[in-house]
Amino acid sequence: MKVVLIGSGNVATHLGIALKEAGHEILQVWSKTFLHGKALADVLHTTATDDLTKVDPEGEIYIIAVKDDFISQVVAELNFDHQLVVHTSGTVSIDELAVHTPHYGVFYPLQTFSKNKSVEFLSVPVLVEGSTKEVGELLFTLAGTISNHAYKMSSEERSVLHLAAVFACNFSNHLYSLSSEILQQRGLDFNLLKPLIAETAAKIQNHPPNEVQTGPAIRNDLFTLAKHKELLTNYPDLKDIYEILSNSIMRSKL
Amino acid sequence: MKVVLIGSGNVATHLGIALKEAGHEILQVWSKTFLHGKALADVLHTTATDDLTKVDPEGEIYIIAVKDDFISQVVAELNFDHQLVVHTSGTVSIDELAVHTPHYGVFYPLQTFSKNKSVEFLSVPVLVEGSTKEVGELLFTLAGTISNHAYKMSSEERSVLHLAAVFACNFSNHLYSLSSEILQQRGLDFNLLKPLIAETAAKIQNHPPNEVQTGPAIRNDLFTLAKHKELLTNYPDLKDIYEILSNSIMRSKL
Repeated sequence: MKVVLIGSGNVATHLGIALKEAGHEILQVWSKTFLHGKALADVLHTTATDDLTKVDPEGEIYIIAVKDDFISQVVAELNFDHQLVVHTSGTVSIDELAVHTPHYGVFYPLQTFSKNKSVEFLSVPVLVEGSTKEVGELLFTLAGTISNHAYKMSSEERSVLHLAAVFACNFSNHLYSLSSEILQQRGLDFNLLKPLIAETAAKIQNHPPNEVQTGPAIRNDLFTLAKHKELLTNYPDLKDIYEILSNSIMRSKL
Repeated sequence: MKVVLIGSGNVATHLGIALKEAGHEILQVWSKTFLHGKALADVLHTTATDDLTKVDPEGEIYIIAVKDDFISQVVAELNFDHQLVVHTSGTVSIDELAVHTPHYGVFYPLQTFSKNKSVEFLSVPVLVEGSTKEVGELLFTLAGTISNHAYKMSSEERSVLHLAAVFACNFSNHLYSLSSEILQQRGLDFNLLKPLIAETAAKIQNHPPNEVQTGPAIRNDLFTLAKHKELLTNYPDLKDIYEILSNSIMRSKL
């Protein structure tokens, strides 16, 4: 398909590269910061613009990969009447695109993308939703050209999935940060925990997480729980988190 | 070295296999459940007992890998006067072993072990502590035969590290469980999140976790935060966890 990318951040970059590699043509990249758009356009061997009124009208699909809060503003300025427009957000409803055109949808790759780290896109779930059955089919087919895991999903299902992803990923990453702080305060090296973090995440690829829960809370090891809370005496925020999660683990005991 | 394993759980099993593969001789396995000890002894081509008074006195090191609460009881029953005895706990102080013998220590592999999943032991940090400088050196050397990451660490440092591991690993795994529940309640498949979980853990192998934090809280995306809390209206425990961790992320903003 002839693709126009609206956005030049991590999602636009990884999606653009995957689409290009799958044989699609990237017509143009729009970014509010011209140099960012130009940098991505160079990678994709195409042109860039920072002017929404100059977006190429010949695209077969316009993929809006900008911050959630900015999507409706971009859509309002696009001023299209028949083109297929999709966004890539986990949270924003498909309805926010129902402005000018009857052809719109959602094309949400469920992955965390970083600037300088490539991703095996074939294993990334891509969740699609169309304003019509035909659009849904088309997006499903497009998703299948870059991923082995294309799914049709309603806005409501997608928002539940996004919520679950916040628990599993955003919150886990924050716990990595907190543990790194705990170590730093005592001059210990976060590298020590990296094999353990890798193994914890690897384990649930093949086991239900509640079956491989370890640690003092699931063992009901009150001695260790008390000792840990004592170590956190001067860190009330960490202590609160420790208590709420330990209590939740104890409640979850199979 | 001639090793006697006291215990037949996951730590004893993985440690026993790693030591055997490194060329050490496993003299005997003790387990309170004879069949468990026998099963591990078979793997290690050695004998088993369930009687602490029949533990072979010819060992050069006795590795106690039993539940934390059970360590002092086992030590009391061992009745040794000169043998080197170590435990493998992240939390229990070295002092709990100071009963009969001046030679004791800690040999703590910082990893989460599962029954049917092999572990690349060379990359597992092993934290050692000795009752004397000589014992410390000996344990450090022993750790170096099975791991590329041997460290000397005091009981106090080890307990801080263990606390940090609870945050990074036990709590993360519980968040995987909670996200799995959220999905299950709406008939969605936890498999969808597995690539994201793998990538989140992979990312921090090369980036400080606070620099790769993503999600609505770090973006201060109040719309999504409110929407997520609404989705959790009927799940007060999950809502509390969502709020406390989101607030912590917002406070941590760089």
